[in-house]
Amino acid sequence: MEIKEMLLQVQRGTITVEEAEAELKDLPFKDLGYAKLDYHRKLRSGFPETVFCQGKPDEYLGRIFKELYERNGEVMGTRASAEQYQLVKELLPEAVYDPISHIIKAQREAKKLEGCVAVLTGGTADVPVAEEAAQTAEFFGCYVERIYDVGVAGIHRLLSQRERFQKANCVVAVAGMEGALGTVAAGLVENPVIAVPTSVGYGASFHGLSALLTMLNSCANGISVVNIDNGYGAGYLATQINRLALK
Amino acid sequence: MEIKEMLLQVQRGTITVEEAEAELKDLPFKDLGYAKLDYHRKLRSGFPETVFCQGKPDEYLGRIFKELYERNGEVMGTRASAEQYQLVKELLPEAVYDPISHIIKAQREAKKLEGCVAVLTGGTADVPVAEEAAQTAEFFGCYVERIYDVGVAGIHRLLSQRERFQKANCVVAVAGMEGALGTVAAGLVENPVIAVPTSVGYGASFHGLSALLTMLNSCANGISVVNIDNGYGAGYLATQINRLALK
Amino acid sequence: MEIKEMLLQVQRGTITVEEAEAELKDLPFKDLGYAKLDYHRKLRSGFPETVFCQGKPDEYLGRIFKELYERNGEVMGTRASAEQYQLVKELLPEAVYDPISHIIKAQREAKKLEGCVAVLTGGTADVPVAEEAAQTAEFFGCYVERIYDVGVAGIHRLLSQRERFQKANCVVAVAGMEGALGTVAAGLVENPVIAVPTSVGYGASFHGLSALLTMLNSCANGISVVNIDNGYGAGYLATQINRLALK
Amino acid sequence: MEIKEMLLQVQRGTITVEEAEAELKDLPFKDLGYAKLDYHRKLRSGFPETVFCQGKPDEYLGRIFKELYERNGEVMGTRASAEQYQLVKELLPEAVYDPISHIIKAQREAKKLEGCVAVLTGGTADVPVAEEAAQTAEFFGCYVERIYDVGVAGIHRLLSQRERFQKANCVVAVAGMEGALGTVAAGLVENPVIAVPTSVGYGASFHGLSALLTMLNSCANGISVVNIDNGYGAGYLATQINRLALK
Amino acid sequence: MEIKEMLLQVQRGTITVEEAEAELKDLPFKDLGYAKLDYHRKLRSGFPETVFCQGKPDEYLGRIFKELYERNGEVMGTRASAEQYQLVKELLPEAVYDPISHIIKAQREAKKLEGCVAVLTGGTADVPVAEEAAQTAEFFGCYVERIYDVGVAGIHRLLSQRERFQKANCVVAVAGMEGALGTVAAGLVENPVIAVPTSVGYGASFHGLSALLTMLNSCANGISVVNIDNGYGAGYLATQINRLALK
Amino acid sequence: MEIKEMLLQVQRGTITVEEAEAELKDLPFKDLGYAKLDYHRKLRSGFPETVFCQGKPDEYLGRIFKELYERNGEVMGTRASAEQYQLVKELLPEAVYDPISHIIKAQREAKKLEGCVAVLTGGTADVPVAEEAAQTAEFFGCYVERIYDVGVAGIHRLLSQRERFQKANCVVAVAGMEGALGTVAAGLVENPVIAVPTSVGYGASFHGLSALLTMLNSCANGISVVNIDNGYGAGYLATQINRLALK
Amino acid sequence: MEIKEMLLQVQRGTITVEEAEAELKDLPFKDLGYAKLDYHRKLRSGFPETVFCQGKPDEYLGRIFKELYERNGEVMGTRASAEQYQLVKELLPEAVYDPISHIIKAQREAKKLEGCVAVLTGGTADVPVAEEAAQTAEFFGCYVERIYDVGVAGIHRLLSQRERFQKANCVVAVAGMEGALGTVAAGLVENPVIAVPTSVGYGASFHGLSALLTMLNSCANGISVVNIDNGYGAGYLATQINRLALK
Amino acid sequence: MEIKEMLLQVQRGTITVEEAEAELKDLPFKDLGYAKLDYHRKLRSGFPETVFCQGKPDEYLGRIFKELYERNGEVMGTRASAEQYQLVKELLPEAVYDPISHIIKAQREAKKLEGCVAVLTGGTADVPVAEEAAQTAEFFGCYVERIYDVGVAGIHRLLSQRERFQKANCVVAVAGMEGALGTVAAGLVENPVIAVPTSVGYGASFHGLSALLTMLNSCANGISVVNIDNGYGAGYLATQINRLALK
Repeated sequence: MEIKEMLLQVQRGTITVEEAEAELKDLPFKDLGYAKLDYHRKLRSGFPETVFCQGKPDEYLGRIFKELYERNGEVMGTRASAEQYQLVKELLPEAVYDPISHIIKAQREAKKLEGCVAVLTGGTADVPVAEEAAQTAEFFGCYVERIYDVGVAGIHRLLSQRERFQKANCVVAVAGMEGALGTVAAGLVENPVIAVPTSVGYGASFHGLSALLTMLNSCANGISVVNIDNGYGAGYLATQINRLALK
Repeated sequence: MEIKEMLLQVQRGTITVEEAEAELKDLPFKDLGYAKLDYHRKLRSGFPETVFCQGKPDEYLGRIFKELYERNGEVMGTRASAEQYQLVKELLPEAVYDPISHIIKAQREAKKLEGCVAVLTGGTADVPVAEEAAQTAEFFGCYVERIYDVGVAGIHRLLSQRERFQKANCVVAVAGMEGALGTVAAGLVENPVIAVPTSVGYGASFHGLSALLTMLNSCANGISVVNIDNGYGAGYLATQINRLALK
Repeated sequence: MEIKEMLLQVQRGTITVEEAEAELKDLPFKDLGYAKLDYHRKLRSGFPETVFCQGKPDEYLGRIFKELYERNGEVMGTRASAEQYQLVKELLPEAVYDPISHIIKAQREAKKLEGCVAVLTGGTADVPVAEEAAQTAEFFGCYVERIYDVGVAGIHRLLSQRERFQKANCVVAVAGMEGALGTVAAGLVENPVIAVPTSVGYGASFHGLSALLTMLNSCANGISVVNIDNGYGAGYLATQINRLALK
Repeated sequence: MEIKEMLLQVQRGTITVEEAEAELKDLPFKDLGYAKLDYHRKLRSGFPETVFCQGKPDEYLGRIFKELYERNGEVMGTRASAEQYQLVKELLPEAVYDPISHIIKAQREAKKLEGCVAVLTGGTADVPVAEEAAQTAEFFGCYVERIYDVGVAGIHRLLSQRERFQKANCVVAVAGMEGALGTVAAGLVENPVIAVPTSVGYGASFHGLSALLTMLNSCANGISVVNIDNGYGAGYLATQINRLALK
Repeated sequence: MEIKEMLLQVQRGTITVEEAEAELKDLPFKDLGYAKLDYHRKLRSGFPETVFCQGKPDEYLGRIFKELYERNGEVMGTRASAEQYQLVKELLPEAVYDPISHIIKAQREAKKLEGCVAVLTGGTADVPVAEEAAQTAEFFGCYVERIYDVGVAGIHRLLSQRERFQKANCVVAVAGMEGALGTVAAGLVENPVIAVPTSVGYGASFHGLSALLTMLNSCANGISVVNIDNGYGAGYLATQINRLALK
Repeated sequence: MEIKEMLLQVQRGTITVEEAEAELKDLPFKDLGYAKLDYHRKLRSGFPETVFCQGKPDEYLGRIFKELYERNGEVMGTRASAEQYQLVKELLPEAVYDPISHIIKAQREAKKLEGCVAVLTGGTADVPVAEEAAQTAEFFGCYVERIYDVGVAGIHRLLSQRERFQKANCVVAVAGMEGALGTVAAGLVENPVIAVPTSVGYGASFHGLSALLTMLNSCANGISVVNIDNGYGAGYLATQINRLALK
Repeated sequence: MEIKEMLLQVQRGTITVEEAEAELKDLPFKDLGYAKLDYHRKLRSGFPETVFCQGKPDEYLGRIFKELYERNGEVMGTRASAEQYQLVKELLPEAVYDPISHIIKAQREAKKLEGCVAVLTGGTADVPVAEEAAQTAEFFGCYVERIYDVGVAGIHRLLSQRERFQKANCVVAVAGMEGALGTVAAGLVENPVIAVPTSVGYGASFHGLSALLTMLNSCANGISVVNIDNGYGAGYLATQINRLALK
Repeated sequence: MEIKEMLLQVQRGTITVEEAEAELKDLPFKDLGYAKLDYHRKLRSGFPETVFCQGKPDEYLGRIFKELYERNGEVMGTRASAEQYQLVKELLPEAVYDPISHIIKAQREAKKLEGCVAVLTGGTADVPVAEEAAQTAEFFGCYVERIYDVGVAGIHRLLSQRERFQKANCVVAVAGMEGALGTVAAGLVENPVIAVPTSVGYGASFHGLSALLTMLNSCANGISVVNIDNGYGAGYLATQINRLALK
């Protein structure tokens, strides 16, 4: 349809061949050489591009943040070290850093938080991953309910908080070790549960593999899984679901 | 709140101690001895209980279907063999069977299909898992768009169908072997993608492990994963998301 | 001490050198060539030797059962096929077979069942392993409380049965798929929980590996694990614990 | 029954609706926000809550120890570094630290040690895990018999100590590398053996996986397994068994 | 040296260029197209070529046996099915078959059995692999001492047979499940122990992986490992060691 | 460029808007519903689409072969069973079947075989995979040199054939078990080696995993790896390389 | 043939026996004791020997570089640390170092870059491995086209660069995480694709295993795989293919 | 027999009851509490006890060396760090240290080196493990032939050294990465080959797992495997074989 419209305009002469060609060939990203910043992403998906900081060379990092901030009026980066924050801050003084979630962010104006996403953790050691999820969802405009240290070994702790997460449009269940939190939570709610295995544990937890397998094999319904320690992915997906519910 | 209300009624004498006790102790399932059928599930989650047929002893299977059908007016079972269908049909003549998806179902009245869930497959061999997802979503009331054999080795096939799945409230991406379909799809849509690895493949596919890892490590956003070959789980979750969007 | 006593008797001449030598060298087993039956086991451990039938050559099986029955007045075999039972029955007509647990047994006189062992399962498909555990414990003299299909995806089913297993000296928790039953149960009881992973499941359950890892990584206390599908081992261990409690 | 009693009292007016509601809703834990301390645990299970120190943020650690000590009159933490001990000691001067087992503990009054738990190790390098088990059992009131460096490659060392561990109510067998100690020990005793694989080894020991698999596949009876290096879990479970034997 | 001698003869004219070229190029095997039979192997290694029957196409099998028998006066094949034996027997009536070890062999004249190789098994189910090892060693001229069902869960059975295997030049220890037999045996003897893991077991034995890891991680000295179920490899290696001791 | 040309023609009116739209939207595949046949593939890559028969439903198979044969004048399918061949033959009488390689093919006219691809195997059992590679390369027009049963345990067999594979433009090295053939071959040639691990082996070969890892870790240069048993992939790739050399 | 010629010359007396013997026995490498430098490699394969620096003892490193440079007039080393470079530079002042690719090289004269190899990366973090491949290919004389950060989660970035890599004789696709770049690229080109999995990622990427499996299971044709992070191997192989195309 | 002799002497009165009891109960080890030094080991096996230094607490290490040296007149320790050597040297000034093999040893008098053990490595990086094997064999009295850097990617290097290792009573083949050296060597010799996988490599070598699997799956005969990096085990076993050949 769009193509037809353009072709008709070419035929009519309302746009030139060169304009049409440019449009058809236009690159929806900015090429920095070492990186291709995706400016159309916000239009396409409703989410601006986010920076995965871990492993990014120092010389590129600051510039990527700055470019994205200037274009989008906001920028968020995950898995950032305190050293990386210092580098970013030099170029982008608006940036702030949270040492628990390892998130750097800058936002020209505060967003209104809407709907509801609940974030649960099995233990205290899962909190950093949970905060990555929670702050991601908040950055994208979700209201977040945090319910931490409600692992299934003491099931009364989870049950006592039931009302708080049953009302959420999406529940993010973050747990390491044996990772059963997602299954029990999914049995108690009506809406989707996103399970995030964490690398918390030792021995046969194999850096999160045990929790991952537990979650994939959940005998509950309405549960899906993201990568080990992937709080960002869970927060992003929870936002998509929350937005659908708000529409 | 509910507890308070009940206690107030006990105090007021509008319900007896025995009634309140029964209510507080009432078991939200029917105990057949070998199985505990969850009748409150439909109230709690909006979904009736489904039967996972694989491995269920023959003597129990028919009765479970019958009990659920009588209670809920509809029943669905997954991973059923043709032999199991014969057993069920004897007790429940309304039951029908689809040999591709291995689903048995019976429904007193047809549901209106609403919203939109898109189901994609990488290849032809992934169709049985995709059909399990699609028919599950349809059983629960979703309109389903099927887009099969659009694996990423011939990317033009996927791109040419873009419009059909971009409008869906949720995309289910079913793929075996290298399993990259989910990532590419998630890069093209605004709404959640549920990736279903299949055990299709050979050699180093390790019965779906390769596709599973690919999907967990997806560098796209808005994607989560269910167990290998778990079409039912994907269809269920897609329904939850579709319902949220319809509310 | 015993050695000293014997040596003193040799010195005194109350026993001969040959007698002492025989005593010191006596083999506490009967050598059938292809197998060495352990007759002292009952004295040493309080448990007669049990037959692991799977993989035993047909020509040996009947004779092993017969020898043990004659010596001990009772015999039990696990993982027996219906064909193996026919072979055993020809030599040992007292033998009976249970097709659910795959146990063959013969007992000259019924035992009194004492104490309490609770056996829980996550689902219906875990029942064969649970029955192997339950019947093993009964064969060794334990009273067994069976509580089946109480998986954690519908936590109310487990909670409603709490009183029945909280009084047991030992809880055996049998579960496949995500295997979280052991953790939740251990959080509710005072006594040891033996977790038995089962090979029930598909995909990333990897034939019980997922449930095994879940159970090893349990964040609950008072829980230990036996091999996948090892109902016999759990029943044996539960009996040891039950006996300690009864002493 | 308890519920009935409470409801009767509400009816009779001997307790108010508000009191009953509070009782029914009362949380059996103290919520510090980042952690939910389980005060009812001692009543429920006979064991006070223990602190798993590894990975706990510094700012929380001291307060958790202090809260638990004040409530329970005793507190124990495992996997603590020397640095963590310094933090705890500032708030809780009664705390002492053992650098071999990495245990911090404080106890208002010494417990009487009763019954018998034997702790065996395969080699000298397994001693830290063994000490975690031994000191845990002692903290919970068990008499412990330590028998170290009795690996099966020199079987005479184990056999020579037989009398010392055959009398125990429970044997804890701690071993890395090929991990066969548990099997041989279980063949020599009447009571339960808890096998603890350790991460001691190199190459194909895969950080304890080899010992773990050995122990899970033990052809001996009366043996179960806890997570790699989980001395605490073994000590806890041994205590449960020892207490059952003492009752 | 040999090369020099040949060159000198070429120079002297005692052999022609063509003869020398043929000698230098001569293939030390017979090329059947689908297989290259290694006739020089007996000269090079002292062992004739053996046939690994499993997976060999029917049309080739008989001819390979016949060719080798005619050349070497003896032939042995391992992992042969009863059906394969029928095929071989048609072309080579001298062939005999043992259904336990799955070995087909034909020998023009009986060998004198010398030295001593001891073959131990953990259980009765390990006997087929043990027989492959024992009969291989016998085929190559070793005297074999068989000591079966002496697994370490009943250590007295192994200790009582100590004298029989301590005198051997080489001990082959065959065991599945937890596979600890090799370690204990190696601690009792002066000569090399070859450990053969078997696929006997279930659950977390992972088809022999557990026993394999146990044996590789053995804390005993003088032990090495061959592939899972590789009785032939162990018998061959034991023969090499036995021959060295006899020289 | 092509786009510009088309737009210019639209402007000039030499093609209509509808024609241009059709061209830009035209699907380069034929949609059978259950499969999307890729007709442009031959133009795009120089190779017609091939049918992976394993797992294809019977009702589709014949039609897919027929469609492709009619379009391309030739068709090849891999991993076909004898039963599948019967189905195909009914619709496409020109089809022939090779039971060793499991390839079905039909070609209107014979191709000239050019260049040189050498296919090596470690043993006789690797021949089926090698034939899949060899016949694939021949189907696509390569001259193939077959050199079978030259495994590295008898290195003289490989060395004696050196001249035959050193002249090839590409060497395909097919081996199971320990899979070292690729490394040794790559050390002897100047051109690329494609290593194909096979699932031939037992025990710790883990269905080809051992050979796969060997090949990936090869210390030789100029070697790359395809999936376990993927003879087709190796033959295809060898053809690409052979064609480049012929250009 | 060569052997025949030499023998004829011996016969004719044009070379002496000693000369012929020397030739036949001559070692095509220089033995430094700790290393055997392969001087004939350049003649045999057209490539000089390269130094894998990682793990090489400091005392040897400089001398190996120097020897090779003097012999070949050029030398390249991979996986070198900055410290190793300092050591090399002392002995070989011509050496230069690139900190991104970790390559040390020295070349007496610049090579003409011919043909075309395209190197693609999924993300920015894959650039170091890509540069190892690109600079290796350039060292061996290939013209290299670099196309970075074109991962499949934003497929338009890859498609927009299509023309640049479709003309290459060989495409090297470097990607971590889910590693799908190779498959999509192979579907777009006519020539071979070499896929290089990288260890970039976290969680279930298992240090590159996920990307490796993805690439091995690729449903595209014309793709093969090298070891994780093996940029050098890919660059070497790409050069072989590029040279074949140029011949 | 020995027991009988002793009993006869007790009967005769030539030894007292107390002497006999002591003899029968005497512990063939010295108990240091944290370690049990095995003094009878040299008598039993012909080898004195060796110290595995890695992970031994500092306070014990020196004393263990001193005790063993005083008792046996020689002592060897493996996997020692330079720091550990300093600790040992303070108590035992005779100790010397080799930083390549990480061996500490002290010997009152030099041994005569007899027989022949050949030690081969695939590359330079395997030398430390090879030296552990070689120096172990030398410590126990073997003559050792070292042949390093003869990996199979340049097969001529290995073939040119053939004569040097074909005469050995035992060949130790040390290799990492793809680990094929053992197979090729075993195809060239008559005597046993002990394969030692090393953790040398990267990516899919998985810290030696690849080399280990290669060696276990070797298609050569007369080869067995020890743990990854276990040079000591190989040297010990080679000594046993060498001694048998010398007897």
